[in-house]
Amino acid sequence: MSTFPTLAEIEVAKERLAAHLPVTPVSYAASISEKLGKHITIKWDNKFRTGSFKERGALNFLLSLDPATRERGVCTASAGNHALGVSYHSQRLGIPCEIVVPVNAPLVKIERCRKLGAKISYQNSLAEAMVYAQNLARESGITYVPPFDHEHIVQGHGVGALEVLHQVSDFDSIVIPIGGGGYAAGVAATLKQKRPDIFVLGVMSEWAQRIRENPDAYKPGFAPMTIADGIAVKQIGKVTGPLIERFVDKVVAAPETSIAHAIMMLLEHERTVVEGAGAAALAAVMDGHLPDRCKKPVVFVCGSNIDNNLLSRLIEQDMCERGRLLRVNVSLPDRPGMLHQITGIIADQGGNVLQVAHDRFYARLPGYVDVTVVVEVRDRAHGAQVVKHLNDAGLPSQAV
Amino acid sequence: MSTFPTLAEIEVAKERLAAHLPVTPVSYAASISEKLGKHITIKWDNKFRTGSFKERGALNFLLSLDPATRERGVCTASAGNHALGVSYHSQRLGIPCEIVVPVNAPLVKIERCRKLGAKISYQNSLAEAMVYAQNLARESGITYVPPFDHEHIVQGHGVGALEVLHQVSDFDSIVIPIGGGGYAAGVAATLKQKRPDIFVLGVMSEWAQRIRENPDAYKPGFAPMTIADGIAVKQIGKVTGPLIERFVDKVVAAPETSIAHAIMMLLEHERTVVEGAGAAALAAVMDGHLPDRCKKPVVFVCGSNIDNNLLSRLIEQDMCERGRLLRVNVSLPDRPGMLHQITGIIADQGGNVLQVAHDRFYARLPGYVDVTVVVEVRDRAHGAQVVKHLNDAGLPSQAV
Repeated sequence: MSTFPTLAEIEVAKERLAAHLPVTPVSYAASISEKLGKHITIKWDNKFRTGSFKERGALNFLLSLDPATRERGVCTASAGNHALGVSYHSQRLGIPCEIVVPVNAPLVKIERCRKLGAKISYQNSLAEAMVYAQNLARESGITYVPPFDHEHIVQGHGVGALEVLHQVSDFDSIVIPIGGGGYAAGVAATLKQKRPDIFVLGVMSEWAQRIRENPDAYKPGFAPMTIADGIAVKQIGKVTGPLIERFVDKVVAAPETSIAHAIMMLLEHERTVVEGAGAAALAAVMDGHLPDRCKKPVVFVCGSNIDNNLLSRLIEQDMCERGRLLRVNVSLPDRPGMLHQITGIIADQGGNVLQVAHDRFYARLPGYVDVTVVVEVRDRAHGAQVVKHLNDAGLPSQAV
Repeated sequence: MSTFPTLAEIEVAKERLAAHLPVTPVSYAASISEKLGKHITIKWDNKFRTGSFKERGALNFLLSLDPATRERGVCTASAGNHALGVSYHSQRLGIPCEIVVPVNAPLVKIERCRKLGAKISYQNSLAEAMVYAQNLARESGITYVPPFDHEHIVQGHGVGALEVLHQVSDFDSIVIPIGGGGYAAGVAATLKQKRPDIFVLGVMSEWAQRIRENPDAYKPGFAPMTIADGIAVKQIGKVTGPLIERFVDKVVAAPETSIAHAIMMLLEHERTVVEGAGAAALAAVMDGHLPDRCKKPVVFVCGSNIDNNLLSRLIEQDMCERGRLLRVNVSLPDRPGMLHQITGIIADQGGNVLQVAHDRFYARLPGYVDVTVVVEVRDRAHGAQVVKHLNDAGLPSQAV
C-alpha cells in the first residue's frame, strides 16, 4: 500500500511554510500533569496569528498554487478558523480572496476576515455557503480552498508532527482533535511513519459522533449544540478518512461537560484561553481514554477562538459547580429592616452578595416574602455556614 | 556613588537560580503592536509555577540562607503572590515555612499555600500579619522573608533583566510595574548598568499613588479598591526606593479602567489570563506614557493570579462597553402573549435573551408593565436595530 503523504512531501511542505509561519511552542504542563498523573506536554497550535492550527493547511494549499492561479484568486466557505487562515495568508500573498459565510455567523469573525482584506458574501446556511462557493469557483475560474479534504491541506498539517519530533525528546503518545480530519490525518500519518511506536489517540466531540451516526438529527440552519464548533463537522473527508483509519490507533468522543472542564483546566492552570475544539484532546485525557501504558502524551491544543461571552458563562458555571456560588432562599416578614438583617448576616460571614430577587407571589409562608440571594462564597462549606447563620437568626432559609 | 546591585551580584544570582527556575519566555505581540503603533515584545514573567515573578526574589533570598538558618525555617506575611513563591520554594528546598495571612484573604490562595506545605496562621489584617510574622521571626529564631525590601530579593529580580538582554536583540525601552519596587529596582538597576540607553518606564496603580500621597485614605482592614492587588503596596521600600529613583526614568500611574482594558487586551489578543498588576505595564503603554522615540518596548507581564469571578466580571463589563449587550426597557399591556411578541421580535433580529425582569410597580404607562430585557447583540448598531423593531411593532421601547 503506497503511503500518502510521504515523508518527502511533508519535508517539502515544511520548507515551504518555514518563511511564513512560526514554529508553535511546546511546554510541560506541570500542574495539570500532577493532577492527571501523566507527564503532559502541550503543543500550542493555537499560537498562530489567527489563533488556530488551520494556517498550516490553508497556507500550504495557497503556496502550492501557480502564479496565474493565485492571480485569479481563491474562495472558501466557512465562518470560523479556516476562513481566518485563508483570509490572512491570501492577504499576505496578495491573492484576491472571497469568503462565503452563513448569515448567522458570528459578526466578530466576519469582521476579522473583512479586515484581513477578504470580500464577504452571505448565504442562508453553511451548507448553502459551501455549494455557493464551489459554484463560484467553477464559474469564475477562481480556486476553492477546501477546509480539510485535500492533499495539500493534509501535508501542511503534517509539518506539526515534524515540529513535535524535533521539540519533544521523550513522549509515548499524542492526543489530537478530529473534525474533518485534516489535522489528525496529517499529524498522525507523518508521525507514524517516523515513530510507529507512538500511540495516537484521536478525539471527536460527542456531538459530532451523534451527527455522524444519525445525520437526520442535524437540522440545517440550526446552530450546532456544542461548544466545540471548531470540530463540529458532519463528515470525515475522502482523503482524510482512510488516513485516520490507518494511522490513528483509537478514536474517542468527548462529551460537552468534559470539554468545558478541559477549557477551565487550561484557563486555571495554564492561564490560557482556548476554544472548545482546542480543549477536546485534553478532555479525552481527563476522561481517562489514554491507555495506562501511555505516560507521556503530547496533547495538541489547536485553537483559541472562543467567544468572550461563552467564556464568561463557562467561568460562572464552573463557580456554581464548585460551590463558589450559593443561591439561598430566605422567607421573611414584609417589614422594614428585614433585608438589612439578611445582608448583615451575609456580610458578617464574609459572603459577597451578587444578586437579590424578591418573590412576592409564591412565598412559602402566608404573609411572608421569599427573597432569593445569590452569594459568592469561598466554598461549599462556607455556603452551608451562611445558610446556618441565617436560620439561627430565625430566618427560614435553604440553599436552592 | 557605589552601585548596588553590582552586575557581579546579579550574575551570581543568575547562576544560583538557574537550576531551579525556568527562563520565562518572550514573544512579539503582533496584534497589540499593530493596534498601538509600537513594536511590542512581552516578557512573560507570569510563567512561573506559582503564576508570578515573585519566585525570582523569594528563591534568591532562600538560597542565600546558610544550612543552619534554613533548618530553623522561614515565615512571611502575605496573602498573595509572595506567599505562594515562598511556600513553593520552601517546600522544594525542605525549609519549614509559616505564612501569616489576614482572615479575609482569598481562600483559594491560602489553600494553595497550605498544599505547598506551609503552616498557615491568621491575623485580622495584613498590617497585623506583618507585625506578627516579624515578631515570630525575632522570638523563635526563624527568618522573616521580606516581600521586596531586601538586597537578595532585588538581586533575584535583576536576573529577569539579564534574560531579556539575552532574549531580545532589538529594544529601546522597558515598561515594568512598581508595587514595593523590588521587581522594578532589580530589573532597572541591572539593565541600566549594561544598557544606559534603554528608557525605563515604571508603572504604579493610581490607587497606590493616591494612598502614598494620602496614607489616611486607606483604612486598615478594608480591601484595597483596586484590581491590581499585586501592586497595591502603601510604600516603596528603603532599599528599593533609591534604586527606583536612580534607574527608572519616569514613573506613571495607571487608572483602574486602563488596567481593565489592558487585561482584556491580553485576553483577546494574546489569549492569556493576567492579573491587574500583570497588565499595569501594558496599560501605561495604551495610555500613551511611553515617549514617542521609544518604538520597541519590552513590556513586563508579571503575574496571572486573578480570581475567576473578577475575570468573568471584566469580560461582561467589556461586553457592555462595546455594545455587545443591550438593556432595553419595554412597556406592554399586562396581557397574555405580550412577552411572547417581544421575544419573537428579538429572536427574528438575531438577539440572544440573557435576562428578563418585570417591573410591576413603576411602569411608565398607567395599567402597563415595564419589562427590562438584557439581550446579547452583535454590536451597538445591532442593538439599536432591535430597539427600532420593538418600537415599530408598537411596543414603546428604549435602551436603558
